[in-house]
Amino acid sequence: MTFEAMWRDLVPVGRSARTGGYARLPFAAAERECHAWFLEQCRARGLEVEGDGNGNVVAWWRPEGSRGGGVVTGSHLDSVPDGGAYDGPLGVVSALAALDVLRDRGFVPTRPLGVAVFVEEEGSRFGIACLGSRLATGTLSATQAQELRDRDGTALLDAMAAAGLEPSLGPSALLDGIGCFVELHVEQGRDLVHRGAAVGVASAIRPHGRYRFDFAGEANHAGTTSMADRRDPMLTYAATVLAAREQAGRTEARATFGRLDVHPGGTNAVPSRVTAWLDARAGSEEELRALVGEVERRATGHAAVDGTAVTVTAESVSPEVRFDGELAARIAEGLGGVPVVPTMAGHDAGVLSAAGVPTAMLFVRNPTGVSHSPAEHAEVEDCLAGVTALADTLGRLAG
Amino acid sequence: MTFEAMWRDLVPVGRSARTGGYARLPFAAAERECHAWFLEQCRARGLEVEGDGNGNVVAWWRPEGSRGGGVVTGSHLDSVPDGGAYDGPLGVVSALAALDVLRDRGFVPTRPLGVAVFVEEEGSRFGIACLGSRLATGTLSATQAQELRDRDGTALLDAMAAAGLEPSLGPSALLDGIGCFVELHVEQGRDLVHRGAAVGVASAIRPHGRYRFDFAGEANHAGTTSMADRRDPMLTYAATVLAAREQAGRTEARATFGRLDVHPGGTNAVPSRVTAWLDARAGSEEELRALVGEVERRATGHAAVDGTAVTVTAESVSPEVRFDGELAARIAEGLGGVPVVPTMAGHDAGVLSAAGVPTAMLFVRNPTGVSHSPAEHAEVEDCLAGVTALADTLGRLAG
Repeated sequence: MTFEAMWRDLVPVGRSARTGGYARLPFAAAERECHAWFLEQCRARGLEVEGDGNGNVVAWWRPEGSRGGGVVTGSHLDSVPDGGAYDGPLGVVSALAALDVLRDRGFVPTRPLGVAVFVEEEGSRFGIACLGSRLATGTLSATQAQELRDRDGTALLDAMAAAGLEPSLGPSALLDGIGCFVELHVEQGRDLVHRGAAVGVASAIRPHGRYRFDFAGEANHAGTTSMADRRDPMLTYAATVLAAREQAGRTEARATFGRLDVHPGGTNAVPSRVTAWLDARAGSEEELRALVGEVERRATGHAAVDGTAVTVTAESVSPEVRFDGELAARIAEGLGGVPVVPTMAGHDAGVLSAAGVPTAMLFVRNPTGVSHSPAEHAEVEDCLAGVTALADTLGRLAG
Repeated sequence: MTFEAMWRDLVPVGRSARTGGYARLPFAAAERECHAWFLEQCRARGLEVEGDGNGNVVAWWRPEGSRGGGVVTGSHLDSVPDGGAYDGPLGVVSALAALDVLRDRGFVPTRPLGVAVFVEEEGSRFGIACLGSRLATGTLSATQAQELRDRDGTALLDAMAAAGLEPSLGPSALLDGIGCFVELHVEQGRDLVHRGAAVGVASAIRPHGRYRFDFAGEANHAGTTSMADRRDPMLTYAATVLAAREQAGRTEARATFGRLDVHPGGTNAVPSRVTAWLDARAGSEEELRALVGEVERRATGHAAVDGTAVTVTAESVSPEVRFDGELAARIAEGLGGVPVVPTMAGHDAGVLSAAGVPTAMLFVRNPTGVSHSPAEHAEVEDCLAGVTALADTLGRLAG
């Protein structure tokens, strides 16, 4: 089955007819359909599928005589709400296609070759990005994960059970078989466009984190309560959004408020509470700390004026990940000297790298740089160049 | 059944154990339970219940020989999300209690005496305040109402049918029987506290409206998209919130953003769209227009800077309502000269008044002024003073 045919299989799954975007929330119907499709593809190729109690899967090609740490590639199948088609699935489909390319070439690996799918990479449902790989590596404990609830109040374990899984959260034996990991991903930016390259290799993932801002005030009638008598947390939130924008703009950092809950959420009521999530990224950990600290300081100052209160909770913070420099250089050189670029986006590859697995990433050019949006795109020729580059890389690593 | 006993019946219905606030959304379980309780109270008193196809009800005491336009009192049973116990139900329970007081006094009305309950006064579910009375008076057309959907996409007619009603939206024959309307309501402010009075009479409802602000930008990755490359509608929203606060603070006006939807609502995505509702109120219609116009002008200015777009839609605008001055003066005088005060809050009484029904309102003191909040409160003695004042007023109007 060609890359294009596989891609066509996935295109309709979880796609909104209205926006063209994807809703592939982990453990819900559309993402499970993608997962089932993946397992079917693995069976059709005679791969041995191994899963762990966190919902992650590695499908192995283990020809007789192959030994040593496995060379594993793959990505994730979940999406952000109303997300794009490429973020995640491109890495999974390209992995299967690269394996086909290697087999067509008559290549037989001397090390086991695996295709991995990690669950809840986006953190769209349970709030923690790279949930599957964090649990597998022990970066997140089972106890912490058991506390997680989605927006409807469903616990992670219940969501997994409802999807027919038999969850058993915690460090995963799957990792024991992984000697190195290579994740292919659509680029989320335009570095490769500027460099005129279809494919690139990642040097590092910049530090980033998610911080929950709880703004507390007092609910009241929107008509009868004078402006001076209010303790309106929406005002403090609004001032904080602008402070974060200004603060991030001073450097090459990023600060985004893309999600919030307002309570009680009535048109004619001053809210009692606004909960908002800051996504922050910066060039260094020191810069990230300074950015979030300054946003918190300014939020607290506004809260004092507004008669509200603000508390900030770091929900997940990922230090900078520098991918294995030697591996990156070898891969880039093997591909004829493609660019080596850093990214501001988190990935399972970053979690595995931080946990000591030799890890690399390949990026495929994104003409607009847009991601986490229905407009996310990559040209077919660039995707096919990505498959070839991935096959070449896996061939060298597992040859 | 005493006022206190009736009040105790309603206290637990739709009350959140966590916040102490009420969720009595129209046509959903808790509000329907209140409605069923009301009908039972009417039957126990031998009142004739008449409903209309909009869900509104008037329960009549029509002694033999009574004739002419009915003297009607009442209010509503729905609440804002996480609202208080008094806003609405106090007027309904006081109406039943006042009727009991009149009967205990041996009073027999010469005009029919009715207790009314109007549906969806808060507009919390379908977005239009005073939906029941607007439909009954023809202020809102059946065609417009049929387009209304709640947040889950349920149409008004479907919600009504699901509640066991047989909807037939439009001007209501119920109004033909109403000669005058007196609504008792908890005060939503502290005018009566300042004046040291348990009960007051309303002079006017200030003009007010709900305006939907649609901020449109472009979804993108929160990590990889530089601040300069974004078209982030959250920034425009935040600047608009602060502009509205500033603008309202210049006069005695009110401007509130208490409800918004963010799309896609992912932590790691720049939103593509923020939809927010401005609740605005002012001392005059001219002042209201100027306020909303200025907020829109400033929002548009920010949108130009942010690379976003904003459109403003007036969802409901209520011109100033001046209650029947003679009626208000007569009632206030009959009650020994209680204060006559204006309010910034909309009520079914305002809709009926604007539609030509001679209308008055009684307010019961609210010690903190807090409303649309679990903290909304009125002392029992003040509520009982309200019942007596209402009974006295109805007795004079229907005697």
